Amino acid sequence: MEHNVKSWADVAPRLVDVAAGRAPGDLVIRGGQLVNVQSREVLRWDVAVAEGRFAYVGPDASHCVGPETRIIDTESFLIPGLCDGHMHIESGMLTPAEFAAAVIPHGTTTMFTDPHEIANVLGLDGVRMMHDEALMQPINIYTQMPSCAPSAPGLETTGFEISAEDVAEAMAWPGIIGLGEMMNFPGVINADPQMLAEMAATMHAGKTVGGHYASPDKGVAFSAYVAGGAADDHEGTAEADAIARVRNGMRSMMRLGSAWYDVESQITAVTEKGLDPRNFILCTDDCMAGTLVNDGHMNRVVRHAIACGCDPLIALQMATINTATHFGLERELGSITPGRRADVILTSDLTTLPIDHVIARGQTVAQDGKISVDCPHYDWPATARQTVRMGKTVTAEDFGVPAPEGKNTVKAKVIGVVENQAPTKALTAELPVVDGLVQGEGDVCQIALVERHRATGDVTNGFVSGFGYSGSMAMASTVAHDSHHMIVVGTDRAQMALASNRLGEVGGGVTVWKDGKEIALVPLPIAGLMSDRPAAEVAAAADRMVKAMAECGCTLNNAYMQHSLLALVVIPELRISDLGLVDVTKFELTELFEDNV
Amino acid sequence: MEHNVKSWADVAPRLVDVAAGRAPGDLVIRGGQLVNVQSREVLRWDVAVAEGRFAYVGPDASHCVGPETRIIDTESFLIPGLCDGHMHIESGMLTPAEFAAAVIPHGTTTMFTDPHEIANVLGLDGVRMMHDEALMQPINIYTQMPSCAPSAPGLETTGFEISAEDVAEAMAWPGIIGLGEMMNFPGVINADPQMLAEMAATMHAGKTVGGHYASPDKGVAFSAYVAGGAADDHEGTAEADAIARVRNGMRSMMRLGSAWYDVESQITAVTEKGLDPRNFILCTDDCMAGTLVNDGHMNRVVRHAIACGCDPLIALQMATINTATHFGLERELGSITPGRRADVILTSDLTTLPIDHVIARGQTVAQDGKISVDCPHYDWPATARQTVRMGKTVTAEDFGVPAPEGKNTVKAKVIGVVENQAPTKALTAELPVVDGLVQGEGDVCQIALVERHRATGDVTNGFVSGFGYSGSMAMASTVAHDSHHMIVVGTDRAQMALASNRLGEVGGGVTVWKDGKEIALVPLPIAGLMSDRPAAEVAAAADRMVKAMAECGCTLNNAYMQHSLLALVVIPELRISDLGLVDVTKFELTELFEDNV
Repeated sequence: MEHNVKSWADVAPRLVDVAAGRAPGDLVIRGGQLVNVQSREVLRWDVAVAEGRFAYVGPDASHCVGPETRIIDTESFLIPGLCDGHMHIESGMLTPAEFAAAVIPHGTTTMFTDPHEIANVLGLDGVRMMHDEALMQPINIYTQMPSCAPSAPGLETTGFEISAEDVAEAMAWPGIIGLGEMMNFPGVINADPQMLAEMAATMHAGKTVGGHYASPDKGVAFSAYVAGGAADDHEGTAEADAIARVRNGMRSMMRLGSAWYDVESQITAVTEKGLDPRNFILCTDDCMAGTLVNDGHMNRVVRHAIACGCDPLIALQMATINTATHFGLERELGSITPGRRADVILTSDLTTLPIDHVIARGQTVAQDGKISVDCPHYDWPATARQTVRMGKTVTAEDFGVPAPEGKNTVKAKVIGVVENQAPTKALTAELPVVDGLVQGEGDVCQIALVERHRATGDVTNGFVSGFGYSGSMAMASTVAHDSHHMIVVGTDRAQMALASNRLGEVGGGVTVWKDGKEIALVPLPIAGLMSDRPAAEVAAAADRMVKAMAECGCTLNNAYMQHSLLALVVIPELRISDLGLVDVTKFELTELFEDNV
Repeated sequence: MEHNVKSWADVAPRLVDVAAGRAPGDLVIRGGQLVNVQSREVLRWDVAVAEGRFAYVGPDASHCVGPETRIIDTESFLIPGLCDGHMHIESGMLTPAEFAAAVIPHGTTTMFTDPHEIANVLGLDGVRMMHDEALMQPINIYTQMPSCAPSAPGLETTGFEISAEDVAEAMAWPGIIGLGEMMNFPGVINADPQMLAEMAATMHAGKTVGGHYASPDKGVAFSAYVAGGAADDHEGTAEADAIARVRNGMRSMMRLGSAWYDVESQITAVTEKGLDPRNFILCTDDCMAGTLVNDGHMNRVVRHAIACGCDPLIALQMATINTATHFGLERELGSITPGRRADVILTSDLTTLPIDHVIARGQTVAQDGKISVDCPHYDWPATARQTVRMGKTVTAEDFGVPAPEGKNTVKAKVIGVVENQAPTKALTAELPVVDGLVQGEGDVCQIALVERHRATGDVTNGFVSGFGYSGSMAMASTVAHDSHHMIVVGTDRAQMALASNRLGEVGGGVTVWKDGKEIALVPLPIAGLMSDRPAAEVAAAADRMVKAMAECGCTLNNAYMQHSLLALVVIPELRISDLGLVDVTKFELTELFEDNV
């Protein structure tokens, strides 16, 4: 029994009895305007629910009403509970339970989650913990088995590695729906045996291989990636990306996350180019707690798609039946039709999409933005709570960057942060040398990657620009995609050391230091990635953290995301890892200094 | 390894190499206009094939060409091989091998077949024989495990019965795709435990439950049927039927068979009412050999849908990707996209759809209407070839209908045959009595059901009208849906006996007698249902049989179908079975004579 919900087959006798009028339903919703995503119509239809599933949908459910039947009379629209086609719970800095609690009032009733971050920290055990907490929730949280830990073999060292055998093992777990995004696209293109073995294990299990092709090249390399077996991709950013994916038999997932804005640029494939919309899916990929608290979740994405000119019914299909069909769940959820899980939202307007009342598996789980159901917590073990292993107390000296012998200035490679974007620029800067150490200057400050999985005490140093930091400051984070060591950025080496040691002390999180004092802390004790406190509390702490970044001179829009992605050695152009500076246009380690200076 | 084709996962390394240009393809098709049913577009795209699967689709496949690569240069359209969403091979009076050989030149490369007829004669063993021959073919023939033998428990006696345990067992066979049409819809509506157990076994196996709801009632009874779990239905005949099915989350299968004309009346749900077309599927259900030889198969259905006003690309989707998606095979076949089985048709015109060149799994299987591949025969055992067990030589006396004591005329119930339709009318007629036996008169002649599975020697008699027979004649058939005893219709009791005994002698088939002589015979030695001779030969024999019916006075269009359906006790209104006359409006046995005469 997956997800604490009995299968259609197991409750079919009751559903048939209710539909036939021989037994009363548990719940009847009358008078509403049912959005039928199967036929793409709005119908004045009633709904009867039993055993957490739709038993009857049709013009009149009065024959399903008994003395104990709960009745909801409404003139609102009934839409299926919203599905997030691909996302990482860890990005919210919340556990699955608290993430669920945050998104339920927004009408999300199904999520396809890839616990890729915890996999890098805790391996298969961490994936299992996320999976197990996911199955405890009152909404449907499916797990995609992470495929790439490390994301870029040879370019970084993770806490644990995921093998093809791990993937094969996980495919038998009840909540596993497929393979998480296969982001080692160079590996696939080159027919890397391990990557193909992971995809084969997934395909042999009859499950869905998630894709991640983060390159604008839609030529032969893209074709080779597709031939490997990935069934979807959410890395497209342009209309032509979406079109190429669908023409190649993949589903195009279009994301609006806290820092992803890829719907508007791609949905024109449907709204203007007129492609069959069935293969387009909406998702968030990554949402921070503040977005969940202040802006919404999949309701925000659907609203946005509609604002981009998409027909509301088609936009809703992209967040319901299209998603369900993609994962082989079209008879399980994603539409208000008999037998499916009774996940339904009452909304008074199909364009602005207020989420007035949310029902999951036949139970009211939220009304008027307030959750009314318990989201149980997994008992996270000490192994998951004590993951920041630095091996030593770091000092300012660990962050010194020695210049080549005899140089007064150096030409250094600099990671150029770009506002609101994941890719970085590979920049260079002439930097001064003082006492044999290279100094940041102007907008160029220091970045360091502090090893925290194996207590090696290693610190890798480099330079970063674009944040706008000034004065004396440092910021450290154990959220450091994808290997999740510790990223430290600062203008002052002593405070970089203080910030690092502070995270060692609290078990991970994000800390901002200015003029020798900690001015913000987001404790993330679970794997150094997540809090088990409510979203509002975490969002408030994260808000303070973002304000603290501004107090340190940061001029970018919410640059926490940019900070935490500085070690993401699968997205161009320049990144840092525990092994050194990485040129992600060539997928190779590179020297910190230009030769010709 | 299902269907003699390696899985995508197993050949992915080669597909990736071909797509990347590191290895040559087996076949490249250049210069064509690719019908992309995923995006619903026509593209000037090339195709490269390896290992029987598409390796590359895109604007230029020249990097996939090596010295051994077969090249097809064409300006034609490339469309995916056509899929028949639901059909019974036995209806062609052909074995799977000969059926495949007949439809391959028409571009059918995938069929979802329900060997319901042989299940009634030979039980699970017969299903396995069909399944095994299906898997030997060069095209994709999936088997739906028959659900209802008998079709109407208590109203007929079959050769074998299918149990829920049989269904569960079959779900593990490699070629089983789901459950065949659940035609005991009164059973489902009443939550019959066996019917629900069969559907549950299918759903627990993750497979598709075929539906069959043959009633115009779209109220509570229909809703109860849907709640049971059937995923599709092909019994709709009106636009409102199709709409009701899709609104309830079923796929609407619209059929054009030899005697079914249900596309034109339903496709307006898409072409006029504007419903999302994704849930509409084309199928044939039943095609006679003559149709296959003279008119086509799925190409005929698609052409017809287009002639009914459907956009050609949408009509093609209804016979390709929609069907594949329904059965969970969208990543296996149904579109010309990487990884899928390389089933592709070259056609010079998207409206008239000439089938110029058919490729299945990367091999040319037909060109210009001529098959170019072998369709291997299963070695059918004696148990499958000796199935007409009458237990005795029947005589004219067996067909006598004694009148109630002292009556000179009787008011008898008469099965009224309707041209080109499956339903019959429940008629009555005043019939004369001669020597104590009721006599046919005018258009009313005799019908008998001769038991042939258990050699009981039982003969059930009744009356039928509508064929137009005159003079002295009889016609007998061991194709007698669904229990497949022997249906004998005639104006002369002696010849009814001759015809019956003749079928016992040849092991089954259809025979027509006039004035004491056999004027046509279609031998169907396999289960009394199928010939293992080529379609053209069987079609010629069937043509002679239909002509012989006309020589006997029959005025209906190809009334062989009506003849063979006279025992189909699941379709209203009046039928005959081995147990007696059946009122199929009430699903109960009924008396031959009206009380009040």
